[in-house]
Amino acid sequence: MEENKYVIGLDLGGTNAVFGLVDENYEIKATGSLLTQEYTLATAFVEDAAEVISELSSVAGGIENIKAIGIGAPCGNYNAGTIEHAANISWGKGVVPICQMLNEKTGIPVAITNDAKAAALGEMSHGAAMGMKDFIEITLGTGVGSGIVANGNLIYGSDGFAGELGHSIMFFDNGRKCGCGRSGCLDMYCSSRGVVMTAKEMLAEEGAQSSLANIPADKMTTLDIFNAAEAGDKLAQMVFRRTGEILGKACANFATFLSPEAFIFFGGVAKAGDWLLKPAKETYDKYVLSLYRGKAKFLTSTLENGTAAILGTAALAWQETAK
Amino acid sequence: MEENKYVIGLDLGGTNAVFGLVDENYEIKATGSLLTQEYTLATAFVEDAAEVISELSSVAGGIENIKAIGIGAPCGNYNAGTIEHAANISWGKGVVPICQMLNEKTGIPVAITNDAKAAALGEMSHGAAMGMKDFIEITLGTGVGSGIVANGNLIYGSDGFAGELGHSIMFFDNGRKCGCGRSGCLDMYCSSRGVVMTAKEMLAEEGAQSSLANIPADKMTTLDIFNAAEAGDKLAQMVFRRTGEILGKACANFATFLSPEAFIFFGGVAKAGDWLLKPAKETYDKYVLSLYRGKAKFLTSTLENGTAAILGTAALAWQETAK
Repeated sequence: MEENKYVIGLDLGGTNAVFGLVDENYEIKATGSLLTQEYTLATAFVEDAAEVISELSSVAGGIENIKAIGIGAPCGNYNAGTIEHAANISWGKGVVPICQMLNEKTGIPVAITNDAKAAALGEMSHGAAMGMKDFIEITLGTGVGSGIVANGNLIYGSDGFAGELGHSIMFFDNGRKCGCGRSGCLDMYCSSRGVVMTAKEMLAEEGAQSSLANIPADKMTTLDIFNAAEAGDKLAQMVFRRTGEILGKACANFATFLSPEAFIFFGGVAKAGDWLLKPAKETYDKYVLSLYRGKAKFLTSTLENGTAAILGTAALAWQETAK
Repeated sequence: MEENKYVIGLDLGGTNAVFGLVDENYEIKATGSLLTQEYTLATAFVEDAAEVISELSSVAGGIENIKAIGIGAPCGNYNAGTIEHAANISWGKGVVPICQMLNEKTGIPVAITNDAKAAALGEMSHGAAMGMKDFIEITLGTGVGSGIVANGNLIYGSDGFAGELGHSIMFFDNGRKCGCGRSGCLDMYCSSRGVVMTAKEMLAEEGAQSSLANIPADKMTTLDIFNAAEAGDKLAQMVFRRTGEILGKACANFATFLSPEAFIFFGGVAKAGDWLLKPAKETYDKYVLSLYRGKAKFLTSTLENGTAAILGTAALAWQETAK
């Protein structure tokens, strides 16, 4: 009888922790969840997590069929197997050796990384980067994150925290103040917050010629701006153009590092599609070193938003089983 | 009887091609050379190169003791085994499949890369990066080059040309015009040319309070500026400070990519030592993401200028024999 092999992908966010039982074809066979924020102690969370995994294992035909657990979490450190100083996880303030803790409870190998790196792994195993060995996944969501793959492997760096391209400084002078304490980071221009900030700045500059002027400033979202752009609103279209221009310049510099086969964009802001990526690519072509011109593709992720995190962490887990 | 194993390291420049017979302890046992610029055809160069290698093989106790050849050359493409559009090699204008050609003449496996990547390999095998798996070698010479090592391997990228950090744009607006056709590249500020340009700009700004004012502008070198700085010349010291500040900002952005264990500086400009690296490190600490602060070392290369290129390409060759 053939052995059934599964992994668990765990998408660990500040609010919810979603567990998926995933097979070798990246099909999600069953899911479970916990409320991350209900716990104040990591030990209590791990105890209940082991319980959920045990329940999922019955679908898998026994715990022995679960070969690895992959976790995607903010401030997840692959090298150390820890969550470090995660501001938005109620029990993640210090350094939590989550992999070791969960391994001790379940007996299953556990690996962790952050959400952008998990997305890159997902892209490589079953998304837009299948077959690629050198690419840069850029997540454009609440923040800007990245997962960098070189020679077919994720780059973790000396401390596990490589690939924070959202905090590459685009404006050393007069840049927008960033949550990281510095100014001018890419994040402040190409995250959903950044795009809304640009819209507000342009509304203040250009006056009320835009339908966006009717939206209360504190309620405006990237989706509103996208809808306005689609409806022909010139200012909204220009917001994405400005955003894309900054993104294109950033990618021109990223190319000098990796000369990637592709930049792959994932997340809410990337859903703006050509409104964003066309000016980004044009600006990239203008600013990139001629040696690289015309080589890298600009792609949108083919991962589904709802399942990307679980399948990305499942890819991390499968990678662990191959070691 | 124990087998004697050697490799050939070939430092292929626009003027000279220097061949070294190198043993497993990175000792150079014999050398030979050709005048690169005397040849107009790659085939003629390769023919004579095979001759030199044959002569060196007698020192090695026979051609069968030479296990691989490593070449370091401008525009050397590891992935393709080619020299591509090398402006300063008389026979390197198109795409020259140098590895295949030399392999056919000698029967020995041949690999190629550029000089900065060869320096990084040398640093890792017998220099300042021994034992490191994630570091960035930055060569500060006539130009600014780089070799990036992640997960213990050089990054070559999708086309073999990854790691052109000298062409990372530091000033998108009002930057110095670069030889690459764009403006504001790191190269234009931290290469020897860049440092001299900064000195001339500052002399124009600050007047003749500096001993550098006595040197004809077209004769000034980085060494002159270094000597002046050592002798207490404030303007010369400030030239290295400005250079270091730009270098430090650049490295702060490079950190978001790799989170390296170290930045290692090689080449003529790096010989300015603390005049350059102290302000570079201070600026780095100021601008780097707090997550990385205090982690990466700023080191000067421990490779000897005279032998670095040969031993770096020897490291490339030894790497090939391990495949």
